[in-house]
Amino acid sequence: MKIYLVTCNKGKVKEFKQILEPKVKVEQLPIDYPELRSDDPEEIARLAAKQLADSLKKPIVVEDSGLFIKALNGLPGTCSAYIHKRVGLKGILTLMKGIKNRQCMYMSAVGYCEPKKQPISFLGTEKGKIAKKARGTGGFGHDPIFIPDNSKKTYGEMNNTEERKRFRRKAVLKLLQHLKT
Amino acid sequence: MKIYLVTCNKGKVKEFKQILEPKVKVEQLPIDYPELRSDDPEEIARLAAKQLADSLKKPIVVEDSGLFIKALNGLPGTCSAYIHKRVGLKGILTLMKGIKNRQCMYMSAVGYCEPKKQPISFLGTEKGKIAKKARGTGGFGHDPIFIPDNSKKTYGEMNNTEERKRFRRKAVLKLLQHLKT
Repeated sequence: MKIYLVTCNKGKVKEFKQILEPKVKVEQLPIDYPELRSDDPEEIARLAAKQLADSLKKPIVVEDSGLFIKALNGLPGTCSAYIHKRVGLKGILTLMKGIKNRQCMYMSAVGYCEPKKQPISFLGTEKGKIAKKARGTGGFGHDPIFIPDNSKKTYGEMNNTEERKRFRRKAVLKLLQHLKT
Repeated sequence: MKIYLVTCNKGKVKEFKQILEPKVKVEQLPIDYPELRSDDPEEIARLAAKQLADSLKKPIVVEDSGLFIKALNGLPGTCSAYIHKRVGLKGILTLMKGIKNRQCMYMSAVGYCEPKKQPISFLGTEKGKIAKKARGTGGFGHDPIFIPDNSKKTYGEMNNTEERKRFRRKAVLKLLQHLKT
Protein backbone atom coordinates (compact mmCIF):
# COMPACT_ATOMS: atom_id res chain seq x y z
CA MET A 1 0.00 0.00 0.00
CA LYS A 2 0.91 3.65 -0.33
CA ILE A 3 0.30 6.77 1.75
CA TYR A 4 0.77 10.43 0.91
CA LEU A 5 2.72 12.44 3.50
CA VAL A 6 1.79 16.12 3.31
CA THR A 7 4.78 18.20 4.41
CA CYS A 8 7.35 20.65 3.07
CA ASN A 9 10.00 19.18 5.40
CA LYS A 10 12.33 16.75 3.58
CA GLY A 11 13.88 15.49 6.82
CA LYS A 12 10.43 14.40 7.96
CA VAL A 13 9.90 12.44 4.73
CA LYS A 14 13.22 10.65 5.23
CA GLU A 15 12.26 9.64 8.78
CA PHE A 16 8.86 8.30 7.69
CA LYS A 17 10.43 6.31 4.84
CA GLN A 18 12.99 4.73 7.21
CA ILE A 19 10.19 3.39 9.37
CA LEU A 20 7.34 2.64 6.95
CA GLU A 21 9.11 1.37 3.81
CA PRO A 22 9.17 -1.16 2.23
CA LYS A 23 5.91 -2.32 3.87
CA VAL A 24 4.17 0.98 3.15
CA LYS A 25 5.30 3.23 0.31
CA VAL A 26 5.58 6.91 1.25
CA GLU A 27 5.07 9.70 -1.30
CA GLN A 28 5.61 13.32 -0.31
CA LEU A 29 3.07 16.00 -1.18
CA PRO A 30 4.92 19.27 -0.52
CA ILE A 31 1.93 21.54 0.00
CA ASP A 32 0.84 23.91 2.75
CA TYR A 33 -2.46 23.16 4.41
CA PRO A 34 -4.73 24.90 6.93
CA GLU A 35 -4.38 23.81 10.54
CA LEU A 36 -6.74 24.18 13.46
CA ARG A 37 -5.87 26.41 16.44
CA SER A 38 -6.37 24.01 19.34
CA ASP A 39 -4.84 22.88 22.64
CA ASP A 40 -4.86 19.28 21.44
CA PRO A 41 -2.16 18.20 18.93
CA GLU A 42 -4.07 15.05 17.99
CA GLU A 43 -7.22 17.03 17.16
CA ILE A 44 -5.15 19.29 14.88
CA ALA A 45 -3.62 16.28 13.09
CA ARG A 46 -6.96 14.47 12.66
CA LEU A 47 -8.78 17.46 11.22
CA ALA A 48 -5.97 18.30 8.79
CA ALA A 49 -5.76 14.66 7.59
CA LYS A 50 -9.54 14.51 7.12
CA GLN A 51 -9.74 17.72 5.08
CA LEU A 52 -6.76 16.76 2.89
CA ALA A 53 -8.01 13.19 2.31
CA ASP A 54 -11.43 14.41 1.23
CA SER A 55 -10.12 17.16 -1.05
CA LEU A 56 -7.20 15.25 -2.63
CA LYS A 57 -9.00 11.86 -2.63
CA LYS A 58 -5.91 9.98 -1.40
CA PRO A 59 -4.87 8.28 1.87
CA ILE A 60 -3.20 11.13 3.74
CA VAL A 61 -0.69 11.35 6.61
CA VAL A 62 0.24 14.58 8.41
CA GLU A 63 2.48 15.07 11.42
CA ASP A 64 3.07 17.93 13.81
CA SER A 65 5.43 18.16 16.76
CA GLY A 66 5.46 20.46 19.74
CA LEU A 67 7.43 21.04 22.92
CA PHE A 68 5.37 21.25 26.13
CA ILE A 69 7.21 22.87 29.08
CA LYS A 70 5.73 22.19 32.52
CA ALA A 71 6.80 25.44 34.22
CA LEU A 72 5.29 27.42 31.32
CA ASN A 73 1.97 25.55 31.58
CA GLY A 74 2.60 23.74 28.32
CA LEU A 75 4.02 26.61 26.25
CA PRO A 76 5.09 26.62 23.41
CA GLY A 77 2.88 23.53 22.88
CA THR A 78 0.72 23.49 19.78
CA CYS A 79 2.02 26.99 18.91
CA SER A 80 5.67 25.75 18.89
CA ALA A 81 6.41 26.62 15.24
CA TYR A 82 4.63 30.00 15.46
CA ILE A 83 6.51 31.02 18.60
CA HIS A 84 9.85 29.61 17.43
CA LYS A 85 9.66 31.59 14.19
CA ARG A 86 9.25 34.82 16.18
CA VAL A 87 11.42 34.61 19.29
CA GLY A 88 13.54 31.50 18.67
CA LEU A 89 15.38 29.49 21.30
CA LYS A 90 16.37 32.73 23.01
CA GLY A 91 12.72 33.50 23.76
CA ILE A 92 12.16 30.15 25.48
CA LEU A 93 15.45 30.42 27.42
CA THR A 94 14.46 33.93 28.57
CA LEU A 95 11.11 32.65 29.86
CA MET A 96 12.92 29.78 31.63
CA LYS A 97 15.59 31.97 33.24
CA GLY A 98 15.91 31.22 36.97
CA ILE A 99 13.29 28.46 36.84
CA LYS A 100 14.45 25.27 38.55
CA ASN A 101 11.80 22.86 37.27
CA ARG A 102 12.92 22.33 33.69
CA GLN A 103 10.75 19.30 32.91
CA CYS A 104 9.22 19.16 29.48
CA MET A 105 7.79 16.79 26.92
CA TYR A 106 8.20 16.59 23.18
CA MET A 107 5.04 15.37 21.45
CA SER A 108 4.40 14.16 17.94
CA ALA A 109 0.87 13.75 16.63
CA VAL A 110 0.40 11.77 13.41
CA GLY A 111 -2.96 12.05 11.66
CA TYR A 112 -4.14 9.48 9.11
CA CYS A 113 -7.25 9.52 6.97
CA GLU A 114 -8.59 7.74 3.88
CA PRO A 115 -11.06 9.60 1.63
CA LYS A 116 -14.57 9.79 3.11
CA LYS A 117 -13.49 7.82 6.20
CA GLN A 118 -13.07 9.07 9.75
CA PRO A 119 -9.55 10.24 10.66
CA ILE A 120 -7.43 8.61 13.35
CA SER A 121 -4.36 9.84 15.22
CA PHE A 122 -1.31 8.45 16.99
CA LEU A 123 0.66 10.19 19.70
CA GLY A 124 4.34 9.74 20.47
CA THR A 125 5.91 11.43 23.50
CA GLU A 126 9.32 11.77 25.11
CA LYS A 127 10.15 13.37 28.44
CA GLY A 128 13.17 15.56 28.98
CA LYS A 129 14.57 18.79 30.40
CA ILE A 130 15.16 22.26 28.99
CA ALA A 131 18.92 23.01 28.74
CA LYS A 132 20.35 26.16 30.34
CA LYS A 133 21.61 27.22 26.92
CA ALA A 134 21.33 26.03 23.32
CA ARG A 135 23.82 23.28 22.39
CA GLY A 136 24.47 21.67 18.99
CA THR A 137 23.20 22.35 15.52
CA GLY A 138 21.48 19.05 14.68
CA GLY A 139 17.77 18.78 14.03
CA PHE A 140 15.57 21.87 13.91
CA GLY A 141 13.10 23.83 16.01
CA HIS A 142 13.68 23.39 19.73
CA ASP A 143 16.12 20.45 19.37
CA PRO A 144 19.21 22.36 20.69
CA ILE A 145 17.51 23.04 24.05
CA PHE A 146 15.87 19.61 24.56
CA ILE A 147 17.77 17.07 26.69
CA PRO A 148 15.91 13.74 26.65
CA ASP A 149 15.73 11.83 29.96
CA ASN A 150 18.72 9.52 30.52
CA SER A 151 20.92 11.64 28.24
CA LYS A 152 23.41 14.43 28.79
CA LYS A 153 23.31 15.59 25.19
CA THR A 154 20.65 17.81 23.65
CA TYR A 155 18.87 16.64 20.50
CA GLY A 156 20.95 19.29 18.73
CA GLU A 157 24.13 17.46 19.76
CA MET A 158 23.00 14.09 18.42
CA ASN A 159 24.12 13.06 14.97
CA ASN A 160 21.61 10.57 13.75
CA THR A 161 17.86 10.75 13.61
CA GLU A 162 17.47 7.38 15.34
CA GLU A 163 18.86 8.86 18.54
CA ARG A 164 16.95 12.08 18.01
CA LYS A 165 13.19 12.39 17.64
CA ARG A 166 12.36 9.19 19.46
CA PHE A 167 8.90 10.65 20.19
CA ARG A 168 8.16 10.91 16.48
CA ARG A 169 9.38 7.36 15.83
CA LYS A 170 6.92 6.14 18.47
CA ALA A 171 3.99 7.83 16.72
CA VAL A 172 5.05 6.58 13.27
CA LEU A 173 5.49 3.02 14.58
CA LYS A 174 1.90 3.16 15.89
CA LEU A 175 0.80 4.23 12.41
CA LEU A 176 2.73 1.30 10.87
CA GLN A 177 1.05 -1.10 13.28
CA HIS A 178 -2.34 0.26 12.26
CA LEU A 179 -1.60 0.05 8.52
CA LYS A 180 -0.41 -3.55 8.80
CA THR A 181 -3.66 -4.73 10.43
CA MET B 1 -31.71 42.92 9.94
CA LYS B 2 -30.13 40.61 12.46
CA ILE B 3 -26.73 38.98 12.84
CA TYR B 4 -25.55 36.18 15.14
CA LEU B 5 -22.36 36.94 17.08
CA VAL B 6 -20.60 33.71 18.01
CA THR B 7 -18.70 34.25 21.25
CA CYS B 8 -18.66 33.19 24.90
CA ASN B 9 -17.51 36.70 25.93
CA LYS B 10 -20.39 38.82 27.25
CA GLY B 11 -18.30 42.00 27.20
CA LYS B 12 -17.80 41.55 23.48
CA VAL B 13 -21.56 41.20 22.93
CA LYS B 14 -22.17 44.45 24.83
CA GLU B 15 -19.63 46.30 22.69
CA PHE B 16 -21.12 45.01 19.44
CA LYS B 17 -24.65 45.96 20.54
CA GLN B 18 -23.52 49.51 21.44
CA ILE B 19 -22.28 50.03 17.90
CA LEU B 20 -24.63 48.00 15.72
CA GLU B 21 -28.03 48.38 17.41
CA PRO B 22 -30.72 49.51 16.70
CA LYS B 23 -29.81 49.41 12.98
CA VAL B 24 -28.65 45.80 13.18
CA LYS B 25 -29.96 43.47 15.86
CA VAL B 26 -27.26 41.37 17.56
CA GLU B 27 -27.98 37.93 19.01
CA GLN B 28 -25.28 36.05 20.90
CA LEU B 29 -24.56 32.39 20.14
CA PRO B 30 -22.37 31.29 23.07
CA ILE B 31 -20.65 28.32 21.41
CA ASP B 32 -17.03 27.31 20.89
CA TYR B 33 -15.89 26.89 17.32
CA PRO B 34 -12.76 25.63 15.57
CA GLU B 35 -10.24 28.24 14.50
CA LEU B 36 -7.48 28.09 11.94
CA ARG B 37 -3.80 28.29 12.96
CA SER B 38 -2.56 31.10 10.73
CA ASP B 39 -0.37 34.21 10.72
CA ASP B 40 -3.26 36.25 9.34
CA PRO B 41 -6.05 37.29 11.77
CA GLU B 42 -8.43 38.15 8.92
CA GLU B 43 -8.01 34.72 7.34
CA ILE B 44 -8.85 33.11 10.70
CA ALA B 45 -11.99 35.26 11.06
CA ARG B 46 -13.20 34.65 7.49
CA LEU B 47 -12.82 30.89 7.65
CA ALA B 48 -14.56 30.61 11.03
CA ALA B 49 -17.46 32.82 9.84
CA LYS B 50 -17.83 30.75 6.65
CA GLN B 51 -17.90 27.39 8.45
CA LEU B 52 -20.36 28.62 11.10
CA ALA B 53 -22.66 30.31 8.55
CA ASP B 54 -22.85 27.15 6.43
CA SER B 55 -23.41 24.80 9.36
CA LEU B 56 -25.84 26.97 11.38
CA LYS B 57 -27.55 28.50 8.30
CA LYS B 58 -27.55 32.00 9.79
CA PRO B 59 -25.69 35.27 9.08
CA ILE B 60 -22.65 34.94 11.35
CA VAL B 61 -20.18 37.39 12.90
CA VAL B 62 -17.00 36.35 14.74
CA GLU B 63 -14.25 38.53 16.15
CA ASP B 64 -10.75 37.86 17.38
CA SER B 65 -8.17 40.25 18.79
CA GLY B 66 -4.42 39.97 19.12
CA LEU B 67 -1.46 42.02 20.29
CA PHE B 68 1.45 42.27 17.84
CA ILE B 69 4.76 43.40 19.43
CA LYS B 70 7.39 44.70 17.00
CA ALA B 71 10.50 43.68 18.99
CA LEU B 72 9.08 40.14 19.32
CA ASN B 73 8.44 39.88 15.56
CA GLY B 74 4.70 40.03 16.07
CA LEU B 75 4.37 37.75 19.11
CA PRO B 76 1.91 36.99 20.73
CA GLY B 77 -0.06 37.84 17.54
CA THR B 78 -2.66 35.34 16.44
CA CYS B 79 -1.65 33.09 19.37
CA SER B 80 -2.42 35.86 21.93
CA ALA B 81 -5.09 33.96 23.84
CA TYR B 82 -3.11 30.68 23.83
CA ILE B 83 0.05 32.34 25.12
CA HIS B 84 -1.79 34.55 27.63
CA LYS B 85 -3.53 31.56 29.16
CA ARG B 86 -0.14 29.90 29.80
CA VAL B 87 2.34 32.61 30.80
CA GLY B 88 0.12 35.67 31.33
CA LEU B 89 1.27 39.28 31.36
CA LYS B 90 4.38 38.23 33.27
CA GLY B 91 5.55 36.13 30.31
CA ILE B 92 5.30 39.04 27.88
CA LEU B 93 6.99 41.44 30.35
CA THR B 94 9.83 38.91 30.82
CA LEU B 95 10.37 38.69 27.06
CA MET B 96 10.34 42.52 26.85
CA LYS B 97 12.77 43.06 29.74
CA GLY B 98 15.56 45.45 28.76
CA ILE B 99 14.09 46.04 25.28
CA LYS B 100 13.85 49.73 24.41
CA ASN B 101 11.62 49.52 21.35
CA ARG B 102 8.23 48.85 22.94
CA GLN B 103 6.08 49.56 19.89
CA CYS B 104 3.11 47.30 19.34
CA MET B 105 -0.26 47.11 17.68
CA TYR B 106 -3.57 45.76 18.85
CA MET B 107 -5.59 44.22 16.03
CA SER B 108 -9.19 43.15 15.77
CA ALA B 109 -10.42 41.03 12.88
CA VAL B 110 -14.18 40.75 12.37
CA GLY B 111 -15.42 38.01 10.05
CA TYR B 112 -18.89 38.09 8.49
CA CYS B 113 -20.61 35.48 6.37
CA GLU B 114 -24.13 34.66 5.16
CA PRO B 115 -25.02 31.00 4.46
CA LYS B 116 -23.54 29.71 1.18
CA LYS B 117 -21.95 33.12 0.45
CA GLN B 118 -18.27 34.06 0.50
CA PRO B 119 -17.00 35.45 3.83
CA ILE B 120 -15.61 38.96 4.24
CA SER B 121 -13.48 40.49 6.97
CA PHE B 122 -12.79 43.88 8.53
CA LEU B 123 -9.63 44.88 10.34
CA GLY B 124 -9.31 47.47 13.10
CA THR B 125 -5.90 48.45 14.46
CA GLU B 126 -4.45 50.70 17.14
CA LYS B 127 -0.81 51.50 17.76
CA GLY B 128 0.70 51.71 21.21
CA LYS B 129 3.53 50.75 23.53
CA ILE B 130 4.12 47.91 25.99
CA ALA B 131 4.16 49.19 29.59
CA LYS B 132 7.11 48.40 31.87
CA LYS B 133 4.70 46.71 34.27
CA ALA B 134 1.01 45.79 34.36
CA ARG B 135 -1.28 48.63 35.49
CA GLY B 136 -5.03 48.59 36.13
CA THR B 137 -7.61 45.86 36.20
CA GLY B 138 -9.98 46.98 33.42
CA GLY B 139 -10.54 44.95 30.28
CA PHE B 140 -9.00 41.52 29.84
CA GLY B 141 -6.09 39.80 28.10
CA HIS B 142 -3.16 42.11 27.49
CA ASP B 143 -5.06 45.33 28.33
CA PRO B 144 -3.05 46.14 31.53
CA ILE B 145 0.23 46.31 29.56
CA PHE B 146 -1.05 48.18 26.46
CA ILE B 147 -0.60 51.97 26.41
CA PRO B 148 -2.31 53.39 23.30
CA ASP B 149 -0.47 56.20 21.47
CA ASN B 150 -1.30 59.67 22.84
CA SER B 151 -2.22 58.23 26.24
CA LYS B 152 -0.37 57.75 29.51
CA LYS B 153 -2.85 55.21 30.83
CA THR B 154 -2.92 51.52 29.94
CA TYR B 155 -6.18 50.01 28.67
CA GLY B 156 -6.38 48.36 32.08
CA GLU B 157 -6.54 51.81 33.74
CA MET B 158 -9.40 53.04 31.55
CA ASN B 159 -12.89 52.82 32.89
CA ASN B 160 -15.17 52.75 29.93
CA THR B 161 -15.08 50.60 26.82
CA GLU B 162 -15.35 53.64 24.51
CA GLU B 163 -11.89 54.76 25.59
CA ARG B 164 -10.61 51.19 25.57
CA LYS B 165 -10.63 48.86 22.54
CA ARG B 166 -10.71 51.57 19.92
CA PHE B 167 -9.23 49.04 17.48
CA ARG B 168 -12.23 46.78 17.87
CA ARG B 169 -14.68 49.69 17.44
CA LYS B 170 -12.98 50.50 14.14
CA ALA B 171 -13.50 46.97 12.84
CA VAL B 172 -17.12 46.84 14.02
CA LEU B 173 -17.86 50.24 12.44
CA LYS B 174 -16.57 48.89 9.11
CA LEU B 175 -18.95 45.94 9.51
CA LEU B 176 -21.84 48.37 10.21
CA GLN B 177 -20.97 50.36 7.09
CA HIS B 178 -21.04 47.14 5.05
CA LEU B 179 -24.35 45.96 6.50
CA LYS B 180 -26.02 49.32 5.83
CA THR B 181 -25.14 49.26 2.11
